[in-house]
Parts: sequence; C-alpha cells; structure tokens
Amino acid sequence: MPNAPTGFAHGLTLTQASTMIDVALAKGRELGLAPLTVVVLDQAAQPKALAREDGASLLRPEIATGKAYGAMALGFGGRELARRSSKMPGFMNAFSDLCGGRAVPVPGGVLVRDTNGTVLGAVGVSGDASDKDEICAVAGIEAAGLVADTGDPE
Amino acid sequence: MPNAPTGFAHGLTLTQASTMIDVALAKGRELGLAPLTVVVLDQAAQPKALAREDGASLLRPEIATGKAYGAMALGFGGRELARRSSKMPGFMNAFSDLCGGRAVPVPGGVLVRDTNGTVLGAVGVSGDASDKDEICAVAGIEAAGLVADTGDPE
Amino acid sequence: MPNAPTGFAHGLTLTQASTMIDVALAKGRELGLAPLTVVVLDQAAQPKALAREDGASLLRPEIATGKAYGAMALGFGGRELARRSSKMPGFMNAFSDLCGGRAVPVPGGVLVRDTNGTVLGAVGVSGDASDKDEICAVAGIEAAGLVADTGDPE
Amino acid sequence: MPNAPTGFAHGLTLTQASTMIDVALAKGRELGLAPLTVVVLDQAAQPKALAREDGASLLRPEIATGKAYGAMALGFGGRELARRSSKMPGFMNAFSDLCGGRAVPVPGGVLVRDTNGTVLGAVGVSGDASDKDEICAVAGIEAAGLVADTGDPE
Repeated sequence: MPNAPTGFAHGLTLTQASTMIDVALAKGRELGLAPLTVVVLDQAAQPKALAREDGASLLRPEIATGKAYGAMALGFGGRELARRSSKMPGFMNAFSDLCGGRAVPVPGGVLVRDTNGTVLGAVGVSGDASDKDEICAVAGIEAAGLVADTGDPE
Repeated sequence: MPNAPTGFAHGLTLTQASTMIDVALAKGRELGLAPLTVVVLDQAAQPKALAREDGASLLRPEIATGKAYGAMALGFGGRELARRSSKMPGFMNAFSDLCGGRAVPVPGGVLVRDTNGTVLGAVGVSGDASDKDEICAVAGIEAAGLVADTGDPE
Repeated sequence: MPNAPTGFAHGLTLTQASTMIDVALAKGRELGLAPLTVVVLDQAAQPKALAREDGASLLRPEIATGKAYGAMALGFGGRELARRSSKMPGFMNAFSDLCGGRAVPVPGGVLVRDTNGTVLGAVGVSGDASDKDEICAVAGIEAAGLVADTGDPE
Repeated sequence: MPNAPTGFAHGLTLTQASTMIDVALAKGRELGLAPLTVVVLDQAAQPKALAREDGASLLRPEIATGKAYGAMALGFGGRELARRSSKMPGFMNAFSDLCGGRAVPVPGGVLVRDTNGTVLGAVGVSGDASDKDEICAVAGIEAAGLVADTGDPE
C-alpha cells in the first residue's frame, strides 16, 4: 500500500504531545510570560507537535526546536548542555557544527522520560527567560503523566 | 523589557491555526487516510502550529512544511507548482536549490487567503496521496472561515 | 491567474521603505559618515528595499541585512543583541549557527514598530561605527512616521 | 581610519541603480504586471539596490537576485543561461551546486554593459512571466544610458 505509510513508533502519542503543549502554554499565561513557542520532539528528534503564540518573534520555532534537539542529540536536559558550553566550549562548538547548528544548549530543552527512565522525546520552549521557559516545559510533561529531565541532578 | 519580545504579527492567530489542524486531521480520519502530518505557516512562512499523527513516517514534518513553504515562496498553491515542475524543470530545479531544498512542489500545499485575497499563510499536509492530503488542508482552512487557494483556476 | 502571484502582506509599504532609505542616507551625508548600506526588511524578514552608497566595501549588504535580521529573529533591537553577546556567549553562538550565520548582533539593527507596538519590520545600516549607523536608521524610521526600537530601554 | 572604509569601485553608481529600479517598476505598472521585485548587482555581483513592490510573494528577492547573479557568474544574460539549462543540464546542475544554488537561469537576468561593452553589473527582475520581467529590466538599463544584454544575439 504505497499511499499508506504507517507503523512508525514515535515514543509519544499525539494525544500526549497535545497535552504537553496545551499545559505549557497555560502555565505561561498563568505566569504572565512573553508569547511562547512550544515544540514536542519524538524519539527520532522529529517534530510531533508545535504551537507558537500570537506575537512571538520570528525564529522562536527554530530556537524551541533547537533546545529539544540538543537534549535528544546528547542525551541530557538543557541545563547540562549549558554547563558543558561553559566547561567544554571546544566540544560544544564542534557539536554545533556537527549537527549543522540545530542545537541550542540552554535551559528550556527538557527530556521526556517514562517512569522506567526510557527517553520518549523532548520538549523545547522559547519566548521568555530560559528559566521560565523551562518551568512551562516541565508543567506540560508532568501533566501528561511523564517525567521531566531538565539536566539538573535531582 | 528585554525578556519580553512581542508585537510580531503572524497573519494567522494560533486559534485559527489550531482549528485548521484539528479539522484537517478529523477529515483524514473520516476518509480513512494514512497517518497525516499537518503544518500551518504564517505570513513569514514560519511555523505557527504542527501536528503529526501516530504512525507517520520520519520525514513527514519536512514534507508537509515544504509543501506550504513552496506555496508561500512563489505565491501559488501546490497544484500550480506541480504544473511548473513539468513545464519548467530548469526553473524549478533552480528554485529548489535557491531555497536550500525546502520546497516540495506538489498538491497539498494550500495558500490561506482572507476574503479580500490577502495571503495570511499556508497549510501543508503529507501522509497519503497528494490529492487526498489536499482535501484535508482545504477542509481545515474553510473551517477557520478562510479561503483555500490550491493553485487551480476556480 | 498563474502569472500573477499577489496578496502578500509585508507590514511595510515600498513607499515607507523608500522614505526610510532616503532619509537614512541623507543623515549619513549630513554627518559626514563613511559610505552606508541601508536595508529594510519586512515582517517576514525578507528584503523590501536596499541601497548601497558608492565606495562601500564588499560585504556591507550582508552586514546591514544581518543586523536587521537578528532583530527580527529574536525580537529585540541590536543593542539588546549586543548585550546578550557579552552576557550569554553560548546562546548567541548557538543562535548564530542556528540561523546559518545570518544575524549580526550589534547596534544598527533597529525594529520598526507602529504606534501600537506591532513590529512591521526592521532597518539595518552598516558602513560607519555602529552607533552612527544606528542614528541613521532611527532617522529613517521616524521620517516614515513609525517608531524605532533600538533595543535600549526608553 | 578604521571606521571609514571607502574607495571600493562598483562599476555602477547608486544614482544609476536607482534610475534602473524606478524605471523598471514604472514599466511594470504601465504594462499592468504582477508586483515586481527588481535588484541591481554591481561588478562584484553584490547588491547595489533592491525594491520589492507591495503584494509580491516571499522569495522574489532571492529569485530576482538569482537571475542577476547567474548572469554575472557565467557572463551571459538569462536567455543564454536558459538555453544552456536545456542543452547542457549536467553542467548547469553542477554550476547550481557550485554557487550554492544562488543562480536562476531564466530570462529576466540582464547584464548591464557600457557603450564599450564592459560589464558594469546586472539587473534581475521577478514577479510576472520571465519575458515580461525582462522587458522591465531592459527599460531600466536603457533609461540609465547603458546597454542591456539579455543573452540573445542582437
């Protein structure tokens, strides 16, 4: 059936991804943040769902995606990537070139794990300060019944 | 207010974009189509919203985005781009290289116009045959009260 | 009408953009500055108008465009981008890679807002010292009856 | 004087380039064409001036620039590039890759020569059918007192 590709496993369902986005955006409104862009990447680091609030600047989709992509690419939440940018700039510059500049190593890229620790994807949020972006990502992931890994030791 | 970039006009609201995606996906389920990916681009051809159904193959987000991007870049719906690929292969190959391979010139990329004809963005759908993808894009756009321009003469 | 793509909204008219360029260049001559290049980007960060004075060096169009593009991409005038380059070099290096090196984070990239705060585009000027480039961009924007946002708190 | 780079020769003056753009756009209005984008490149194939009319689609600046760039890169007007795309597709594909996809080998890219035949730059026009775009480019070049080379034998 050439017109019906199917059977690809994403780790996350679209229902879960939609919950993450809705709750992350609601948290941003509750906190009075600047317009947010939220993206959910699957186990292949491919987009599962994305939403950009009215008024957000132009490159926010790429930045939000870059935060989530960086987390998937190296296997750490954005806080650990930010630490490595400070401690290992040579490696992180090479990493940036290696992935064609697609990764943004700052807080707000959060790994999504199930309760066994398996990585199902990542959420990226951009629009306000990185710390606040991250709060919204975590709220979305937890509302979907999953575990947020920001890259900080628990 | 350095942490609050705002004031960017997108042409489309997130509410309109969400309606387009929800209705396009519902149309695909009604018709029994393969898993679909739907993307809504704004007036700047930047993503406003995206959703990929469970089971869709890996590059569907790029293909759906490429259909919508091609329509925005040249100013025609995907059917006109497909015709030009047949009639003007030299130009269309150059166009593909010019935009870094980002455009996909087939049906399923549909311009979104308001009732005055102003282009507000574009919808791209990928997953089933291009004709069926297009049906879903049109359904979404019309459900949002806007005008779908597929690239065919009316 | 396949040969007549139209209906694309730019935020700025060509008349406004031409005024910005003419007045910015006149300000540069009044101040005795080096040859300037002035570019006006629209709401999609695409060029609306550009002019390069006689004698300007080779890459000035890309530099002027990069100043305006950086402002559009992140949603701040160039002065805020310059501050972030000092305070957040990791993020700004990632941002540069993310946008393919297209952004130049220095003064002289100025957002164009209407009186409601909506971003209509950006002006970039390059050729003399960044502070002086910026003076010319602001003069052009104000002459068109619009509001210049340099990235400094008011 | 580090802040005053100067002395770069462009082949064309900004006054000449502005005349070319004004007259090319006026010709398009006279003929009732779709919204046009006109760019003038100098002897280094760098932008000297550009204007995009209201309503033109997103990628027109790149297409207009690509027509003029292709002419400068190979030294023929766009009609000869179009012929070579048909007769020598292997070479023209390699050429497209070689210049990073920057060239668009169709009519509407016109070399600007002085009366001695020296190439001073090129004009690119995009927005309507290529033949009509070219008419506007030629009108602009001749109004500046220079010679248009479309790539057709005289």
